[in-house]
Amino acid sequence: MDLAALRRGRRGAVARAISAIEDDPAAARSIIKEIFPETGRSCVVGITGPAGAGKSTLIDRLAQDLAARGMSPAVLAVDPTSHVTGGAILGDRVRMSGSTDSGAYIRSIASRGATGAVSASLRNSIRVLEYAGFDPVIVESVGAGQTEVGISLMADITVVVFSPNTGDSIQAIKAGLTEIGDIYVVNKGDLAGAGRLLDAVRDFVARSGGARVVRTSARRGTGTGELAGLIESMSAERRGRRSTPESLSAELGDIVLTGLRERVAVMAERDATFRDCVRLMQEGRLDPYSAGRRAARAVARR
Amino acid sequence: MDLAALRRGRRGAVARAISAIEDDPAAARSIIKEIFPETGRSCVVGITGPAGAGKSTLIDRLAQDLAARGMSPAVLAVDPTSHVTGGAILGDRVRMSGSTDSGAYIRSIASRGATGAVSASLRNSIRVLEYAGFDPVIVESVGAGQTEVGISLMADITVVVFSPNTGDSIQAIKAGLTEIGDIYVVNKGDLAGAGRLLDAVRDFVARSGGARVVRTSARRGTGTGELAGLIESMSAERRGRRSTPESLSAELGDIVLTGLRERVAVMAERDATFRDCVRLMQEGRLDPYSAGRRAARAVARR
Repeated sequence: MDLAALRRGRRGAVARAISAIEDDPAAARSIIKEIFPETGRSCVVGITGPAGAGKSTLIDRLAQDLAARGMSPAVLAVDPTSHVTGGAILGDRVRMSGSTDSGAYIRSIASRGATGAVSASLRNSIRVLEYAGFDPVIVESVGAGQTEVGISLMADITVVVFSPNTGDSIQAIKAGLTEIGDIYVVNKGDLAGAGRLLDAVRDFVARSGGARVVRTSARRGTGTGELAGLIESMSAERRGRRSTPESLSAELGDIVLTGLRERVAVMAERDATFRDCVRLMQEGRLDPYSAGRRAARAVARR
Repeated sequence: MDLAALRRGRRGAVARAISAIEDDPAAARSIIKEIFPETGRSCVVGITGPAGAGKSTLIDRLAQDLAARGMSPAVLAVDPTSHVTGGAILGDRVRMSGSTDSGAYIRSIASRGATGAVSASLRNSIRVLEYAGFDPVIVESVGAGQTEVGISLMADITVVVFSPNTGDSIQAIKAGLTEIGDIYVVNKGDLAGAGRLLDAVRDFVARSGGARVVRTSARRGTGTGELAGLIESMSAERRGRRSTPESLSAELGDIVLTGLRERVAVMAERDATFRDCVRLMQEGRLDPYSAGRRAARAVARR
């Protein structure tokens, strides 16, 4: 890995490093060990919200506005996956490589894989982009439960995007509003229903305290400048702060569990106690919980 | 827990037992220890496919046809969740409690929770229904990656349902066809496009070998009798077979990992080495992988 080229933000080097992070655990480990001391200082902006809220167009505009303010944004899109193809939707992946109109580096990474693998590749891809000089690093994800929560833990600033046409009623959107946002965006603000949605979001924010609300129309280019300004000032307030202890502790726990998961998988194949337990379960002579206690002791002995 | 009432298939007792399985780990453990030797003999039919394929109506009809053949079907619906509300869609959950027109017991269980928790509550809810005398136990799920794979591992017979109007092109459906099915159903067989879809599915099956293909219209009540007949004969072939070693081994691994996950969570809170690692990471003095090795040794010492 050419770390000097990566340090200078060369796109080829960045792309190769992120691919290695995603596909090659040994390479990932050696890259991260090298670059880790120089990371943790860029502002990470998580942008989440339902499919159809117009996040991608919004991010294109936002990246232009951030660049116009002298910042160097990069975008990591956590790929939406299709339940049919079981993988990235091709059109989206094509769109999501190269750069936005603003010249920001943009890249999609897989949102599916073994437990823990997605957050590991996301965390480490953010580090690659930080090392390459990008700031802020924008992480786009479809709001989908555990991923969403994971990203808000990694992000310094969390932006939640809604629009009046995602097929959910105002009632449903209100019911689903979570307190993870530092900024709530009502996008497609020129569409019918945007006013009512904005009122609902403002009500929610007034009750839960403190977050900012912005109305945008990415298509018309309104409001994204205000959003960029907010991100710039929040980013300045938080500059120099490294990743939080909560986030690093979650990462460390993930790394330890990934190792344990591999150990359990190997034991399921080879360990005599483990295989005995399975046989007794199959014969109906040992219930799963008692078997679990016995197998856990075998894991501990290793 | 009134095991005698559960054994007799009393609906109230079944409902209470499944609720305990879902909500109360200690109660779940004690119920499963009691009933485990009497479980593992009913046929588990996994029915999966994209949202909109008409699975619920199909299952209603299928349950009637199975009951007409003298079987005692029950249905567990792994609840679709909304990315907005973060929970079960209310309308669906209401529909999914009580019984179908056939009198089959039907119940939805949450599809979201801590890693491993969903498959544990699914496996154990199946056991409760077996103990209560239901056979087959039908598990309905939206085809969605990891869940789908998990269910095909638990199922004796896997049924994959498509329909011509789920919004995916024939091309997309073909690309997404997996070999998990023992039976492929083209539902809404009276709609335009059903013939082409049927041809595509038959092509796929002919290449991958062995599975059966059925065309149904649950709305018109055609084809579900044939499907019920297939399930009855496949079920008879496999009767008496307990859960496979693969499935029990996966369950045992899940149980062991759940315990380890809890241990790691406690250590992240309290263990001195773990907390030291986090501090050094935050100071940029220790990279995550080296910290992981150190923390893993601390876990092993416990």
